[in-house]
Amino acid sequence: MEIEPIGIIHSPFHQATETPIQPFCAVGSEATVEVFPAFAEGLEDLQGFERIWLLFWCHQACPSKLTVVPYRDTQPHGVFATRAPARPNPIGISAVRLLSVEKMLLRVAEIDILDGTPLVDIKPYVSEYDSYPAMNSGWLRTCPTMETSHRADNRFERNKPE
Amino acid sequence: MEIEPIGIIHSPFHQATETPIQPFCAVGSEATVEVFPAFAEGLEDLQGFERIWLLFWCHQACPSKLTVVPYRDTQPHGVFATRAPARPNPIGISAVRLLSVEKMLLRVAEIDILDGTPLVDIKPYVSEYDSYPAMNSGWLRTCPTMETSHRADNRFERNKPE
Repeated sequence: MEIEPIGIIHSPFHQATETPIQPFCAVGSEATVEVFPAFAEGLEDLQGFERIWLLFWCHQACPSKLTVVPYRDTQPHGVFATRAPARPNPIGISAVRLLSVEKMLLRVAEIDILDGTPLVDIKPYVSEYDSYPAMNSGWLRTCPTMETSHRADNRFERNKPE
Repeated sequence: MEIEPIGIIHSPFHQATETPIQPFCAVGSEATVEVFPAFAEGLEDLQGFERIWLLFWCHQACPSKLTVVPYRDTQPHGVFATRAPARPNPIGISAVRLLSVEKMLLRVAEIDILDGTPLVDIKPYVSEYDSYPAMNSGWLRTCPTMETSHRADNRFERNKPE
């Protein structure tokens, strides 16, 4: 199963360390999503959605691990019980705020994605499909660093800076 | 960018026609997600999450179209403004209810996925990351069939039954 980039994400985050770990802790960050010309037609009517899903290829993640210590805990968990980028198929999903659509450029806010990340898909965020408030969140309920761990470090980075 | 199946989804839906178009209109449907043995370790601690994201390869979708008439409307829209499966990278995302984890088998409910669909990833659904109630949903707000179109038909099916 082969996927191809449909665009590229230009963000202010150039390395994992200090990048927000999720959109909810990225308030104030803005980025530009460049969609390649061959796919521009597919953006018609995206304007009007308040949020969109970006699916992206975690190109800077280290090779897959099945057990990880995620950013938000000090204990190991199965990778499928975490949102860590070092996954068998390193595809991330983020529900970001859509500010504007200008031809092939999307301005977005609340973004937690590294600069240069290949874009795989865009989908509208539809509350009716995607919003389930107050779901039980397993180990995340009780982990000790839940309130403080809002920024990444380089634990999952492929090429760690010296 | 190459992805590999990490499992397979066994569901009661054998063709697109009459399959629920999203989990919210699939209440009562149950399915089994089989994770391949090589990836079983990654399921540790998934139990306890009330919902999980399934990322899957829309293997029965017809080739990508950039403009589609989605199930929920009679008018065309850019594919990235819809959740149609006929996408440049045919990856679907569904937030399904997790009933149980029994070794490599997940029992899930509220599933909108065809039988035999390759599984690409599992992520925990975390309301803090994923739940944004009452977001403006663009063209979906006003489309005439919003209340009635809850089941798919074969418009995006690769091999339409005779």
